Amino acid sequence: MKAVILAAGKGERLSQGKDESKPKPLIPLLGLSLLERTILSAKESGLYDFTIVVGYISEEVVKYVETNQKHLGVNIDFVENEEWEKGNGLSVLKAKKTLKEEDFVLLMCDHVFDSSILKELLGYAKNRGSKCVLCVDKPENVFDLDDATKIEIRGNKPKSIGKRIENYNAVDCGIFYCTSEMFDALENEIGKGKYELSDAVQCLIEDEKIEVLDIGGRFWCDIDTPESLEYAKRKMLDSLTKPTDGVVSEYINRRFSKRVSKRLVNTNITPTQITVMSFIMALASAAFFFLGEYKYLIMGGLLAQASSIIDGCDGEVARLKFLETDYGAFVDSILDRYADGAMILGLIFGYWMLNGGISVWIIGFFALTGSFMISYTNARFENIFEKSVKTRIPIRRDMRLFIIMIGAFFNHVLAMLLLLAILTNIEVFRRLFSMQR
Amino acid sequence: MKAVILAAGKGERLSQGKDESKPKPLIPLLGLSLLERTILSAKESGLYDFTIVVGYISEEVVKYVETNQKHLGVNIDFVENEEWEKGNGLSVLKAKKTLKEEDFVLLMCDHVFDSSILKELLGYAKNRGSKCVLCVDKPENVFDLDDATKIEIRGNKPKSIGKRIENYNAVDCGIFYCTSEMFDALENEIGKGKYELSDAVQCLIEDEKIEVLDIGGRFWCDIDTPESLEYAKRKMLDSLTKPTDGVVSEYINRRFSKRVSKRLVNTNITPTQITVMSFIMALASAAFFFLGEYKYLIMGGLLAQASSIIDGCDGEVARLKFLETDYGAFVDSILDRYADGAMILGLIFGYWMLNGGISVWIIGFFALTGSFMISYTNARFENIFEKSVKTRIPIRRDMRLFIIMIGAFFNHVLAMLLLLAILTNIEVFRRLFSMQR
Repeated sequence: MKAVILAAGKGERLSQGKDESKPKPLIPLLGLSLLERTILSAKESGLYDFTIVVGYISEEVVKYVETNQKHLGVNIDFVENEEWEKGNGLSVLKAKKTLKEEDFVLLMCDHVFDSSILKELLGYAKNRGSKCVLCVDKPENVFDLDDATKIEIRGNKPKSIGKRIENYNAVDCGIFYCTSEMFDALENEIGKGKYELSDAVQCLIEDEKIEVLDIGGRFWCDIDTPESLEYAKRKMLDSLTKPTDGVVSEYINRRFSKRVSKRLVNTNITPTQITVMSFIMALASAAFFFLGEYKYLIMGGLLAQASSIIDGCDGEVARLKFLETDYGAFVDSILDRYADGAMILGLIFGYWMLNGGISVWIIGFFALTGSFMISYTNARFENIFEKSVKTRIPIRRDMRLFIIMIGAFFNHVLAMLLLLAILTNIEVFRRLFSMQR
Repeated sequence: MKAVILAAGKGERLSQGKDESKPKPLIPLLGLSLLERTILSAKESGLYDFTIVVGYISEEVVKYVETNQKHLGVNIDFVENEEWEKGNGLSVLKAKKTLKEEDFVLLMCDHVFDSSILKELLGYAKNRGSKCVLCVDKPENVFDLDDATKIEIRGNKPKSIGKRIENYNAVDCGIFYCTSEMFDALENEIGKGKYELSDAVQCLIEDEKIEVLDIGGRFWCDIDTPESLEYAKRKMLDSLTKPTDGVVSEYINRRFSKRVSKRLVNTNITPTQITVMSFIMALASAAFFFLGEYKYLIMGGLLAQASSIIDGCDGEVARLKFLETDYGAFVDSILDRYADGAMILGLIFGYWMLNGGISVWIIGFFALTGSFMISYTNARFENIFEKSVKTRIPIRRDMRLFIIMIGAFFNHVLAMLLLLAILTNIEVFRRLFSMQR
């Protein structure tokens, strides 16, 4: 199936006189232009063929996309709408000649959205036979309601659409599943001199040829002003918190890692390079621990926590720039385990050098075993039961590295290792026995 | 869908005058009666409703099954065929009144088979509309060809069936997918005084109402004589070797573990109890290692290897008795890791007590990390890529415990730990980099 992306507009309000020459599709948002973001969101939903309708400064948009096409990994046809100022309905109609199949997806380059919305739309439309479907959201979820296209829905059916309608209870998200009837409606309305897409949609509504799908509160945003751009940025960064995040990760690490990621997305640094960076910081932390003395211990503790924070950035940058790979996830988890091992060995050795005795080795051995076993039981549980294990004692990696930092700050290496050994192994045995029931 | 199991015969040749009173369905094979085995194989293929046709000493069969029904976890109707001596076609027809749906699966209680055959049959039949299907095998795979029911197939179509036909190129496996046409054919033939199932099948063949499905060399066996019982036992034990088995496991451990499992299946010992037994042996091994002296080291080495062998039995018994559970697999892998940790700690401590020095601790630390990382990368690889990782350096658990035994025998603990540390960590890094390509 093909996706048609409208990228013909000027976006005057967004540039606000600053850099008028930059067309709206190329405005950057967290490391990707709005147009790239739309393409990659659709690609993540399984769409690989695109028609992009360009208009305002079209050469620049085409040139930019063609330069980046290889890394986008999709097929793109361009269509020029020289009369882009007339209205976006005309832009949709211009795409008609590039479509072989009857059905297509219609997207706006200035609407960012969670790709799960599009996945659901495709699944929904497949089960509805051939009918147009329009994604809608509740008015209270919209950033700039004044500028939104409103819809009145009665009993699951759309009744009217428009920017200025009085009675509305939903808002158009700019994500459509279209059949050829969309073109029929467009041709009809354009013949009457009505050039907006919503004119054609109103026509489809009247003929009961379009349905609505509530996106259920998932994220989307129409980027029209610098304020909405900032809003989208904030929402997207907020969404990086994962449901599996531990408490330290949620309340401390993410606050810092998001700020770092916000900057990293604007560089060419890859997620795997960030993974390696975090690993090197962990090794440096271990090296300080090896030296044993308190002043080094503090440095090591700080580096351990910093490494823990940067360890969140690889995934964040990957998600923000659509760069998630299986290999990246694999490397990340392997290097994390070696980093854990190196830090614990450093702590043991440093302590032993200053204080001697064999107890730190034995306790350290249990701390290492317990740390590994938390990660191992996570992985095995997922293997076998195909879901994530529930953690009761919050002793995942974020907490372990936090405990290491605190232990180092207070110069209590032995107690810290003992605490790690106890908490990790108790949690593993809890996981073992809780499942017996 | 319901499965009809024929369990009415006497099995004279199997008991061979020994214990004439024991009806054939109750003859034990590796810890389960033939009838239980047939029921549980079908259950593993997703069938939970059964009609069992009994005849010879029917009260005993019914009583036995009713006693065990709870642990079988299926629904069973019994039908009595008092004229069981006439022929097995009559037994099938007797089941008709217990079937609500039209289609059913027909099985023989004295045929053991790999449950994947039945899974494939069900999938195959689903795509063929309503048509009878009979599973067939090549004649060269059959243990007792003289007694087998032969089939002539020409161009994928069955042409004739019978024990005494001249030209045949396949053998009936006694596993059928039947539509109501089977009953029509049976009624027809029985009316003519022909009481055997193969008479009805011949009739279906002539009307082109039955197809054949080649089971592709998978295991099945008709148990008719003490020799065929022994043959089935041997084949089933042989099939326990897993494709993921390491070299030590394949060439040494399995030889012993199969012999142990062959005995264990006849007891009430559960797979989880065997897992715990293996774990305790590993802890005992670690305890000997802790003592350090050479004489204890030998004991520890022997116990480590013995634990490795018994570690294979839990899975073997579980597979032989249809007792595999997700929880069992989880417990097994967790206890294995702790066992590995305990043995390595024991080896380090024992060596250190006699020789002092810190090098054994550091080397042991790397050996422990490497051992964990082999198992961890196995699990993570499966998580992420949904297949098993390829091992190039054979350093999975079977080999690690074997190296520990050899190292203990030669009193070279330090060299053994160093070898483990090097091989395991090299393999982990190989896995990491080989995937980058």
